[in-house]
Amino acid sequence: MSQLTVALDMMGGDHGPPVTVPAAAQALSLLPALHLVLFGPEAELSPWLQRFRLDSHPRVTVHFCSQQVGNEHKAAYALRHLTDSSMRKALDALASGQARACVSAGNTGALMAMAVKVLNTLPGVDRPALITRLPQAGGGYALLLDVGANVSCDAGQLVQFALMGEQAARHTLDIDRPRIALLNVGAEANKGNEVVREAALRLQDTAGLHYCGYVEGDDLFAGKTDVIVCDGFVGNVALKTSEGVARLLLGLGQRRGFLWKILTFWLKRRLSHLNPDQYNGASLIGLRASVVKSHGSAGSPAFLNAILQAVAEIEHDLPASIAHRFDTAPQDSHAR
Amino acid sequence: MSQLTVALDMMGGDHGPPVTVPAAAQALSLLPALHLVLFGPEAELSPWLQRFRLDSHPRVTVHFCSQQVGNEHKAAYALRHLTDSSMRKALDALASGQARACVSAGNTGALMAMAVKVLNTLPGVDRPALITRLPQAGGGYALLLDVGANVSCDAGQLVQFALMGEQAARHTLDIDRPRIALLNVGAEANKGNEVVREAALRLQDTAGLHYCGYVEGDDLFAGKTDVIVCDGFVGNVALKTSEGVARLLLGLGQRRGFLWKILTFWLKRRLSHLNPDQYNGASLIGLRASVVKSHGSAGSPAFLNAILQAVAEIEHDLPASIAHRFDTAPQDSHAR
Repeated sequence: MSQLTVALDMMGGDHGPPVTVPAAAQALSLLPALHLVLFGPEAELSPWLQRFRLDSHPRVTVHFCSQQVGNEHKAAYALRHLTDSSMRKALDALASGQARACVSAGNTGALMAMAVKVLNTLPGVDRPALITRLPQAGGGYALLLDVGANVSCDAGQLVQFALMGEQAARHTLDIDRPRIALLNVGAEANKGNEVVREAALRLQDTAGLHYCGYVEGDDLFAGKTDVIVCDGFVGNVALKTSEGVARLLLGLGQRRGFLWKILTFWLKRRLSHLNPDQYNGASLIGLRASVVKSHGSAGSPAFLNAILQAVAEIEHDLPASIAHRFDTAPQDSHAR
Repeated sequence: MSQLTVALDMMGGDHGPPVTVPAAAQALSLLPALHLVLFGPEAELSPWLQRFRLDSHPRVTVHFCSQQVGNEHKAAYALRHLTDSSMRKALDALASGQARACVSAGNTGALMAMAVKVLNTLPGVDRPALITRLPQAGGGYALLLDVGANVSCDAGQLVQFALMGEQAARHTLDIDRPRIALLNVGAEANKGNEVVREAALRLQDTAGLHYCGYVEGDDLFAGKTDVIVCDGFVGNVALKTSEGVARLLLGLGQRRGFLWKILTFWLKRRLSHLNPDQYNGASLIGLRASVVKSHGSAGSPAFLNAILQAVAEIEHDLPASIAHRFDTAPQDSHAR
């Protein structure tokens, strides 16, 4: 197997092959060392593969599947019954070593359930977290996790997210000693709910971690920290709220007149970071291999970004880096 | 006592009298029937009262206090030790009937603890919630609660917030049959954590309530619903995240060049809804009298807005309306 092989779930999300196939073609063209393994039902996938000449591409392997995971499928159902879905088969390819990363735009809950079952978490990690980048005032990015993999967490899991986020920031943001913060409703130690306050105490005691205290929702883009940790419910709301505000402002720009058109153009460029169509995929980290979740409504440019992100994670070997960090972490972070 | 009397905590927040006194003066000038009772320490307050001629105004009563609640004070400390603070005295005036609403820009935790102790919640209401308006695409507003009074809630409390929010929307947004939604991480019934799912089941069974299911973070400004319910942690993060995005965009506009200046001007106007300096105060609802919390960093225009909001709540008698709704609500909403 090539070192740089990515498995793609060609279905999933709102669009499927019309989005995923062009993105795959472009990734192959951009990266001469990239190999892809594509999964999807023959009837829907074949015509698009032919159109983009991926049906006989030297660096493409195609596996046809009989099932797909739809947005309506519960995670438990998908896990039990959709074992020949493109999502499941792509993850199986990862587990067997046929690929070193996987990208899917599908149902997050199903993806997570399948990924945990097929790949298992790294030692010391209870649950993987969905991590994403947020643009920062003044430039650069911060990482936010968990943005939707876990709807409730205990303090120990937040601590694990902090350690994983730290490694992700070192490798994907190139920051030597990332600043870690907990998302809360105030800056003072006594603020927030019990889980967050307990996590804060444990993080203060975690050796080698540059823990900086709490940040609030309006600090997410402020450039004050490199990694922000929260449970998946709060993180998902924060992320989607940002998208909603962006959409509100873009909507306000759609009025007649030259000045409005300029404003809309400018806004779209500035807001591209927050526009689901443009931002990089979110990664599921804490698993034994890299899984990148592309936004369900993503267009081709965004799916391409997700593939590129998967490639970057292979090159940095993020799972190994996280495993090593947990080997060296104090017992306390494993306790619950 | 005049029907329209508002008690003002003249301290609190980041600024105190330089903000609160001019706002008070303007409110009196706008509303000839308004009476104000002002609370604050003599040394800091007197000079400003004199400057704005409120020291001998026929519709102003001044009570000097020896203490203030600072941002650093824990709620429990303030409750026990700061009984002669301007915040506490303003609430006492409400409890005694000297005023019918109260406005403070101070420490939210302390305000809430004192308000619950002094005023008590209405029958059927466990905890008051902080409620605020969100601008909607296409115009108008929706209400979001709880945005910070309670850092964790059970399902019964979310149901109570829904009932209170319904009354607030009827009176302050003039909507006959407000659409109520729960903030969640997906639209499907099985999404979200246990508390939210249980609240959803109870709301479906609540007679007379126009419950519409879940909305996600990117729907907060979408005009899809009139009242959005969540716990105070999630709500606070959502609200502050919106402010943060707004600030990020305003920051991006501060570059040289005529076009950038136009863009910044336009953005500031459009974003004024989300700008803490401009938006209305958040109300603490579920208490026996109206308490309006002005944003800590609010300038005079925003504090004036908070006073006007307090006046509106007196005119609508929102507490009575909520009490009546709970009288007629099924037992289920009270169960925990």
